[in-house]
Amino acid sequence: MTEFFKNINKVKFEGSNTTNPLAFRHYDEDRMILGKSMKEHLRFAACYWHNFRWGGADVFGDGTFDHEWLKVADPMEQARVKADAAFEFFAKLGAPYYCFHDTDVAPEGHSLKEYTNNFQTMVDVLEQKQAETGMKLLWGTANAFSNPRYMAGAGTNPDPKVFAYAATQIFNAMGATKRLGGENYVLWGGREGYETLLNTDLRQERDQLARLMHMVVEHKHKIGFKGSILIEPKPQEPTKHQYDYDTATVYGFLKQYGLENEIKVNIEANHATLAGHSFHHEVATATSLGIFGSIDANRGDAQLGWDTDQFPNSVEENTLVMYEILKAGGFTTGGFNFDARVRRPSTDLEDFFYGHIGGMDTMALALERAAAMIENDVLSKHIAQRYAGWNDDLGKRILSGDISLEGVAKFALENNLQPEKVSGRQEYLENIVNGFIYK
Amino acid sequence: MTEFFKNINKVKFEGSNTTNPLAFRHYDEDRMILGKSMKEHLRFAACYWHNFRWGGADVFGDGTFDHEWLKVADPMEQARVKADAAFEFFAKLGAPYYCFHDTDVAPEGHSLKEYTNNFQTMVDVLEQKQAETGMKLLWGTANAFSNPRYMAGAGTNPDPKVFAYAATQIFNAMGATKRLGGENYVLWGGREGYETLLNTDLRQERDQLARLMHMVVEHKHKIGFKGSILIEPKPQEPTKHQYDYDTATVYGFLKQYGLENEIKVNIEANHATLAGHSFHHEVATATSLGIFGSIDANRGDAQLGWDTDQFPNSVEENTLVMYEILKAGGFTTGGFNFDARVRRPSTDLEDFFYGHIGGMDTMALALERAAAMIENDVLSKHIAQRYAGWNDDLGKRILSGDISLEGVAKFALENNLQPEKVSGRQEYLENIVNGFIYK
Amino acid sequence: MTEFFKNINKVKFEGSNTTNPLAFRHYDEDRMILGKSMKEHLRFAACYWHNFRWGGADVFGDGTFDHEWLKVADPMEQARVKADAAFEFFAKLGAPYYCFHDTDVAPEGHSLKEYTNNFQTMVDVLEQKQAETGMKLLWGTANAFSNPRYMAGAGTNPDPKVFAYAATQIFNAMGATKRLGGENYVLWGGREGYETLLNTDLRQERDQLARLMHMVVEHKHKIGFKGSILIEPKPQEPTKHQYDYDTATVYGFLKQYGLENEIKVNIEANHATLAGHSFHHEVATATSLGIFGSIDANRGDAQLGWDTDQFPNSVEENTLVMYEILKAGGFTTGGFNFDARVRRPSTDLEDFFYGHIGGMDTMALALERAAAMIENDVLSKHIAQRYAGWNDDLGKRILSGDISLEGVAKFALENNLQPEKVSGRQEYLENIVNGFIYK
Amino acid sequence: MTEFFKNINKVKFEGSNTTNPLAFRHYDEDRMILGKSMKEHLRFAACYWHNFRWGGADVFGDGTFDHEWLKVADPMEQARVKADAAFEFFAKLGAPYYCFHDTDVAPEGHSLKEYTNNFQTMVDVLEQKQAETGMKLLWGTANAFSNPRYMAGAGTNPDPKVFAYAATQIFNAMGATKRLGGENYVLWGGREGYETLLNTDLRQERDQLARLMHMVVEHKHKIGFKGSILIEPKPQEPTKHQYDYDTATVYGFLKQYGLENEIKVNIEANHATLAGHSFHHEVATATSLGIFGSIDANRGDAQLGWDTDQFPNSVEENTLVMYEILKAGGFTTGGFNFDARVRRPSTDLEDFFYGHIGGMDTMALALERAAAMIENDVLSKHIAQRYAGWNDDLGKRILSGDISLEGVAKFALENNLQPEKVSGRQEYLENIVNGFIYK
Repeated sequence: MTEFFKNINKVKFEGSNTTNPLAFRHYDEDRMILGKSMKEHLRFAACYWHNFRWGGADVFGDGTFDHEWLKVADPMEQARVKADAAFEFFAKLGAPYYCFHDTDVAPEGHSLKEYTNNFQTMVDVLEQKQAETGMKLLWGTANAFSNPRYMAGAGTNPDPKVFAYAATQIFNAMGATKRLGGENYVLWGGREGYETLLNTDLRQERDQLARLMHMVVEHKHKIGFKGSILIEPKPQEPTKHQYDYDTATVYGFLKQYGLENEIKVNIEANHATLAGHSFHHEVATATSLGIFGSIDANRGDAQLGWDTDQFPNSVEENTLVMYEILKAGGFTTGGFNFDARVRRPSTDLEDFFYGHIGGMDTMALALERAAAMIENDVLSKHIAQRYAGWNDDLGKRILSGDISLEGVAKFALENNLQPEKVSGRQEYLENIVNGFIYK
Repeated sequence: MTEFFKNINKVKFEGSNTTNPLAFRHYDEDRMILGKSMKEHLRFAACYWHNFRWGGADVFGDGTFDHEWLKVADPMEQARVKADAAFEFFAKLGAPYYCFHDTDVAPEGHSLKEYTNNFQTMVDVLEQKQAETGMKLLWGTANAFSNPRYMAGAGTNPDPKVFAYAATQIFNAMGATKRLGGENYVLWGGREGYETLLNTDLRQERDQLARLMHMVVEHKHKIGFKGSILIEPKPQEPTKHQYDYDTATVYGFLKQYGLENEIKVNIEANHATLAGHSFHHEVATATSLGIFGSIDANRGDAQLGWDTDQFPNSVEENTLVMYEILKAGGFTTGGFNFDARVRRPSTDLEDFFYGHIGGMDTMALALERAAAMIENDVLSKHIAQRYAGWNDDLGKRILSGDISLEGVAKFALENNLQPEKVSGRQEYLENIVNGFIYK
Repeated sequence: MTEFFKNINKVKFEGSNTTNPLAFRHYDEDRMILGKSMKEHLRFAACYWHNFRWGGADVFGDGTFDHEWLKVADPMEQARVKADAAFEFFAKLGAPYYCFHDTDVAPEGHSLKEYTNNFQTMVDVLEQKQAETGMKLLWGTANAFSNPRYMAGAGTNPDPKVFAYAATQIFNAMGATKRLGGENYVLWGGREGYETLLNTDLRQERDQLARLMHMVVEHKHKIGFKGSILIEPKPQEPTKHQYDYDTATVYGFLKQYGLENEIKVNIEANHATLAGHSFHHEVATATSLGIFGSIDANRGDAQLGWDTDQFPNSVEENTLVMYEILKAGGFTTGGFNFDARVRRPSTDLEDFFYGHIGGMDTMALALERAAAMIENDVLSKHIAQRYAGWNDDLGKRILSGDISLEGVAKFALENNLQPEKVSGRQEYLENIVNGFIYK
Repeated sequence: MTEFFKNINKVKFEGSNTTNPLAFRHYDEDRMILGKSMKEHLRFAACYWHNFRWGGADVFGDGTFDHEWLKVADPMEQARVKADAAFEFFAKLGAPYYCFHDTDVAPEGHSLKEYTNNFQTMVDVLEQKQAETGMKLLWGTANAFSNPRYMAGAGTNPDPKVFAYAATQIFNAMGATKRLGGENYVLWGGREGYETLLNTDLRQERDQLARLMHMVVEHKHKIGFKGSILIEPKPQEPTKHQYDYDTATVYGFLKQYGLENEIKVNIEANHATLAGHSFHHEVATATSLGIFGSIDANRGDAQLGWDTDQFPNSVEENTLVMYEILKAGGFTTGGFNFDARVRRPSTDLEDFFYGHIGGMDTMALALERAAAMIENDVLSKHIAQRYAGWNDDLGKRILSGDISLEGVAKFALENNLQPEKVSGRQEYLENIVNGFIYK
């Protein structure tokens, strides 16, 4: 079998003093942190699409990559070569998981039948590759947004035939995910939104989408898939507005259709910031609403208004994210999937490794720092103390519903309440956090 | 009684050819449109705060206004003078409604008792003013965000005493709203959010806020207030993040706490755009979710990241908003409140009139154009036709839940579905809309 | 010759009451406004790239268009077919001008020689097409951003060979523009910026870019090209930062390198808003700096952070832009080029026409409204009066440099200056403008 | 003399293991880095306005601070008390410098005469305080934006009397700065912009502003002030658009009016991001244009569209900024002024210290990390190598102007240039940088 990533060996942990750019400086997979190995905590995945499907094109320019697998002309042959390259990469990188869309791994062909056959064939290949390499599947998904048929939505398309086409892909991708031992199934509604309200029936489209979600949930139970169903929020792009705008919006949607116990969120850092939130906010919101599932680890550019999907490299940002995740008990079925790609001018095969190694080291450092914050949980103690009044009589009566608006007003007036000002101590707490990050 | 707005008479409709800047060119209150007068459709309100409380200060500069009522030293005396000025203005402007916060109309004093007394006194004054002028109250509200005690939230404050203080204000403001015949009661949670997640318990704060909402709803029923309870979404400012971020977020919150049949939204144009949405989007979302209540009519500046609260002046934007409102049956208890203020350098008393007249003419034109769109509803017909497939067998079976994911997939494969591409015709529809706006 | 736009005739002016979506409602090319025809004022151009090169792909999806010219396999044959289709479209639309990049009209081939030959061949074709149809060239340009060789810049590339390649394209495109009677030559530096400062020498890159500009200017004079050289500002996308960020930045660059009398700007509406400015601002800035050249007419989406290149449809926005242009004397060599494309789901050939017709009608209305503003120039009079003090003694002495800082301070103190507050009257002026737009 | 900051001693360096929140963990003023002490490198200043003038108000709420100096009723007495408090704070903090606006330190009074007297009196006080404490003045400035008279600009005001008033303040503030040994004089044109183009003459206003700048420069030379004149760019807020938008815009302005050798920029982090740039970008742009002067050290909030003026706390961001500054030779007259304020709910006096200590430790760490990057300058080497081709024959001939556009094209064609693709290695370089930040 051809070797694609020549002269690159399996990436090893060499510690922070290494000068080897192809080694981990911080990700030491077996290192124990809070009773679990780094590998178990972080559950890293590399993705198929950015690394093996994308050719380096952007809106203003053609593909810049000359990678071997992109040059194979026959679609099924290309799929096999891509799988070889992908699993070589995955195995050398040393992230335990990978993720894929159905159409990343198999060509769509010219009919549903062709698609189905191609996909089944490639799932066999993936199964074998997993067995050979020990790679595991973090999640699978169906691409129901790239093909022109989805230009006006998949589940939310005005044409039920398009809905049916998408449902068929999802049916296949769910089956494959189960068969390959995938731990989650993800729904990203890239075109489930609108380009203009002038041609859109919001209520109808949301009902359609909810119906699709229910079908997915019912199917999960029917086939005995034990993983989680995840929705990935994004506010816009490619559409002008996407219905799964952010975590709070997804939560409202799930509640509206009675799906809040069946579906969780897969939060992407870059989608969070495009929605006007910090990444930290989205994770904290999801954990507080009980719908936190998994992470698409990447970063955006604070000055750019589109999904740049860069590799995470801020320990500062990710320490707080990691802290929320640890506080919530860590991942169950989820993990950190690098939904990230090298820049268009990063045309060397080594660049794939630099990107992932940088991302993994960043998250490993974030884990280490966050674990220290958990062990000596100054923040939680400060918060507990800040809200302590709610454990007193007045607080309890209010929260329990034991007292009415009028009752509270009467109480306040009779007691001539004059609440004291208490500093929020934001700067103090920020210093505390930096004290954990920078020793 | 002093006349404040000297040399300004009641504003009259003079038609589009008038050169009188203090006349309406388009708002002809008795003109019938789709069976109702403009006045009944638009239900305009002017607000107390921007016009009579604000002195022209901004973050970088002191107040620029020398208006008489701002110069009165004694707080209660000032409140009375302000009421005189306000009702003179309201009456001369000719909007049928006004709106206020408790602390706009009465000084807070130094204790709850003082506040309560001051407020009761001023509610008497307002009642008399309403009787004298015929002005009606669109909505009342309590200001639970300006006083330093609310610096860390009102309902979401870590200190239940602060919650109780806010509850007391709300109790008073609801009572006053009922007594003054107000048609709605509004909750804007200016500080119901966080400055930093480092000192915040999201779950606790949301529970507190929900408890406050429940108290308000229970109190409404108890006192027999027939109006609507409205939440006004805003994403941030003054806080870093406000829990009532946008309409979809508010909807999720209401569903979470079982309040979705009790509370609606008061949508502000400028808050919509700060949240990353078009104003049109927020209104369409609210009507599609069944929680549309009222409008804070203003505009932001597409290049500025804060609430500029300028007067609406885009007929193009507001025609689409008005079209959504008309399609949804028009306002019930809601209306267009001008939560708008003249620019800081607009220091003449006439400027108040120019601002409101411009806003009212804009909305009147928008109503006229939208009504024409309704009468010949090309958009609705186009939409009905676009989704027509969902009335066919496959569409019905999918939406009714009559067919499973596997069933759909089987159907698709057996029928070798190849959906046809259908143009979304966005440019065509945009031209249609412009054809209504520009004759 | 094949007809591509079947069943579509030359678009005619039919007036605002027409129900024909393929007719102009407002653009009446021979109608005289302020002494010139609409055609002469507006100088509309349609572009080659969005209409004939783009296939409907976006970052998340494949091309949606099935247009005939996209299906031709042989590159040179495709170029000829595209030219047929393009000129059929241009002629039927009735805009007097068109614009192109070298690589829109001819395939790049595999070497500079092939490129040069292909391009020369196609320039012959364009020349003949122009003769047949009467179409004129508003401007030509070279695409030095799409080919992978330009991934790190063209003029600003770290490799001088890439600079030379780009220079060769520009040499060819300038020659073609002159030969085809083009009225301007445009430079858009899509990749003249950086992806990361970590690998960038800002000073070096700016020097390179300036050298390229000087070469272009020298070449223009050498070949006797009488048109204008134009730079098109854009803040970012595809790069993280583009050196030609906005009009003020371009002006600084031109001044730095002594080019301010040789190069003007081609302002795009959507680039203006991406740079944090209103379109109006960019045009007003350019006219006030004396570097206004031409316009890429389109619009962005106020909620989206990338170049959506939609057709202009706001008469409100464009009336103010048109007003600035008229005040500055109108276009000389410039015009309104529709750098705009139909939405990806607008897959019908008619959609091209709807887009352009809507854009042309919008600008025609804007011209009509702006002309009325010019005829009765309330705004200019108001401005003249507002600054009148600068014609008095103190103002003159200050501006002429006749008085020093100390002198002014002394004068102020001696005269105990107490400037009076004068309202800025923004709301009044906004109403005046709306009075011109909506009769 | 009253002690204001009771129980707080002079802040000391205690190292990264300290648990004392009122100690420095990283800022060790005498520690030598690259041959200079931390103190000499960083040249920290604390400011008067945020700490001693601001009372904790924001647009939606009243002041939250109860600090003693805010309660003194008599304006001159308050000014003296503020000075006592300020210098106590400055001295305890241990930053060597401070900064002020004229109206921070002395009340404006009711006339120019009163203002002048008050200010002279307080300058005497400051002089004495400096002598007592050893504090030095980094820069002085005049506040020509808060008073209502400046609502339509200071230098750009339509009324020359307002220009004269501002000039008088600047005259006084420059004199005071010289007398107090200030090392720079700063101009921030908070209102030098427009609220609406409808009432604005851009050319006139820019000419006025340039005249003011020339007066300042001439006055500087006349009085023999040896410090630098600095403009502080900001894109907007309080105005809709400020003429000193960003560094590139200021550079163009300086070039237009021949001031580029006389005036430099004072870059604020939060202003950079509001302008759509990274802080790093603004500093790199200024050094590459030769106009880098000083820094207003703070941070914005990536999700908020206004100037939040938070204390810097990102070592990641500031390491790159520090690296640019070191590469450019470090500060000459400039320094890091904390134009930053504690959050409105940070109502304890300790919070002032936490904010500044956090900021100083952040910058000290950034300095240490950046110094390591300089000592082993991988980035510079990589850049030198990347552009090495420009030292070859072709590169030299192009840059020297030795070859024309046609000449280059001819060369390219004859040599059949086929430039090779070279990876930009962004991910690799980002990892290198993180390797310096996280050991």
